[in-house]
Amino acid sequence: MKIAILPGDGIGPEIVEQAVKVLNALDEPFEMETAPVGGAGYEASGHPLPEATLKLALEADAVLFGAVGDWKYDTLDRPLRPEQAILGLRKNLKLFANLRPAIMYPELAGASTLKPEVVSGLDILIIRELTGDIYFGQPRGVRVCPDGPFKGEREGFDTMRYAESEIRRIAHVAFQAAQKRDKRLTSVDKANVLETFQFWKDIVTEVHKEYPDVALDHMYVDNAAMQLVRAPKKFDVIVTGNMFGDILSDQASMLTGSIGMLPSASLDANNKGLYEPSHGSAPDIAGKGVANPLATILSAAMMLRYSLNKAEQADRIENAVKKVLAQGLRTPDIYEAGTTKVGTGEMGQAVLQAL
Amino acid sequence: MKIAILPGDGIGPEIVEQAVKVLNALDEPFEMETAPVGGAGYEASGHPLPEATLKLALEADAVLFGAVGDWKYDTLDRPLRPEQAILGLRKNLKLFANLRPAIMYPELAGASTLKPEVVSGLDILIIRELTGDIYFGQPRGVRVCPDGPFKGEREGFDTMRYAESEIRRIAHVAFQAAQKRDKRLTSVDKANVLETFQFWKDIVTEVHKEYPDVALDHMYVDNAAMQLVRAPKKFDVIVTGNMFGDILSDQASMLTGSIGMLPSASLDANNKGLYEPSHGSAPDIAGKGVANPLATILSAAMMLRYSLNKAEQADRIENAVKKVLAQGLRTPDIYEAGTTKVGTGEMGQAVLQAL
Ligand SMILES: CC(C)[C@H](C(=O)O)[C@@H](O)C(=O)O
Ligand SMILES: CC(C)[C@H](C(=O)O)[C@@H](O)C(=O)O
Repeated sequence: MKIAILPGDGIGPEIVEQAVKVLNALDEPFEMETAPVGGAGYEASGHPLPEATLKLALEADAVLFGAVGDWKYDTLDRPLRPEQAILGLRKNLKLFANLRPAIMYPELAGASTLKPEVVSGLDILIIRELTGDIYFGQPRGVRVCPDGPFKGEREGFDTMRYAESEIRRIAHVAFQAAQKRDKRLTSVDKANVLETFQFWKDIVTEVHKEYPDVALDHMYVDNAAMQLVRAPKKFDVIVTGNMFGDILSDQASMLTGSIGMLPSASLDANNKGLYEPSHGSAPDIAGKGVANPLATILSAAMMLRYSLNKAEQADRIENAVKKVLAQGLRTPDIYEAGTTKVGTGEMGQAVLQAL
Repeated sequence: MKIAILPGDGIGPEIVEQAVKVLNALDEPFEMETAPVGGAGYEASGHPLPEATLKLALEADAVLFGAVGDWKYDTLDRPLRPEQAILGLRKNLKLFANLRPAIMYPELAGASTLKPEVVSGLDILIIRELTGDIYFGQPRGVRVCPDGPFKGEREGFDTMRYAESEIRRIAHVAFQAAQKRDKRLTSVDKANVLETFQFWKDIVTEVHKEYPDVALDHMYVDNAAMQLVRAPKKFDVIVTGNMFGDILSDQASMLTGSIGMLPSASLDANNKGLYEPSHGSAPDIAGKGVANPLATILSAAMMLRYSLNKAEQADRIENAVKKVLAQGLRTPDIYEAGTTKVGTGEMGQAVLQAL
């Protein structure tokens, strides 16, 4: 089995290094090949998603991704900016289902800005559609406004859209995920304003008929943003579109106060996937050896479970992470008085030992 | 001066009644006229925004609005549903600037789900563009997908768009609001993905040249949703589009834990405005006399300040509200042990007395 390793920019390389060490320690016959992506891709060959990198990702059985982005690329034209690599990988690999758990580790309860009683035991799964919506809809651009009150002026515009089968397939993923959990699914939309999301709501309601054991409710996105602050533990699984999912999954991960702990998976129809930490490239701390590698290590565990059919090995890694937390080891982002502060490499080493 | 009073549905009538009592007590020569809106409009004349109601709102110098919506209208066709009245009023009255303060009253610090140190003293102002964006963009609907991988299938679609002058005018409102506060403005966009918001960012940056005394920064909407959880006090004024503003302003108001306290203003180019509480119609508690009228009373204060040029009277009302909080009076939504629980009418009466 072949794994494409795409470290990317900022803290990407150092956190991916730790995850690779952990994967190597499993004694599985994984073939791993590394390629540059994001700013590193641009430096290497003038494009954030070099052809060879895309080819490797297409051939591989799974992709382990670090993070991309650095302020120094902010002045590049949009198509050359690091984050275009993410969009390109999602589109080309048809990774339509993004799974983002927001889990509160009991040892890290203090890290949240929310009161302990509001978030302790938090365990939600946000499923974000990842290849449709306004992210890729055409037409888009800047044009002379063709009619209406602003006729003749310049205007920026984009197209939001979802086809029936796109909604169906993500709904199936969501209902099936809910079946494996507490059997409650909240579909987040803005059906009171948007045609796209009235259509979304109708199709999700239809698909629900195939999953009578799952309780489905519908919630407007503005209300969802409120309920995630007010009573986040009421949610089990949330499914929503690409744009709303971008916002809500980041909001939800911040509720835990320890985004450095949260992995993510982006899957295609055959469970091939790209795995990456939920946090970004943090160029401000890159190279200092202080970044938290656990979200990336846990992303590798998700990869073993979803794409490589190695659930036992995934469990082993997840248990090892729990063990190092119980031992009191903390990178600076999750450090609290009374625990032991360690660096990126030490944390990786500790997970290895705990395996 | 003429004020249109639109109580609406659910708790709307009972909370607006208290605000009207307070306005009457000011001894100003206000002419007030009441008309049905939302579900009440539909009941009265088959449309959520009856013609006579719209005419009244257009003629008036300001509109005091309660809330609209009730589950019993959920099965109506979209154009007949209560919330269409809000959209219709915004569009017809050209209320492009929505001002939503998220303020933490010291007496209510305990109400928040966030830790006191994270939210105590919170005072942010969210300025949401209210007549553009994907809310009103054309074309929209459900169609047979014309091309691409889903050709031939049904798809829902909408158009996001902002013309240059729409962005300019809301940017001016935002910079001027920041000048009256801590002189810091955060423009929230998704310029890394959307053409509309790259254009937004460019125009806001241009308008900034006219306000060199205001510090401007740009933030992606997903990051803004995170920072509102992580460190909300870092914000002063936030300006954003209609869709992102819908989500972020609701999220921000929930940070305080006391959305029953938060007013809002929606202004046109001449400071004519519609004023309404930030919370909804809460049909579950309607008619029980337990709803919190303070957000509506504070909305009336905003109306005096922004549309009716009566800043002193606005101050009087705001001080009266502070006084009743200091007296320990609380409606059930903000009740805590050690305070005195009161109903909607008693709370209104207490504000009257404190005037
Ligand atoms: C970098 C950006 C294009 C991306 C997105 O908006 O999807 C990021 O925010 C994410 O959520 O992975
Ligand atoms: C009811 C709905 C159309 C409305 C909106 O989305 O603007 C509401 O959520 C609001 O924020 O006033």
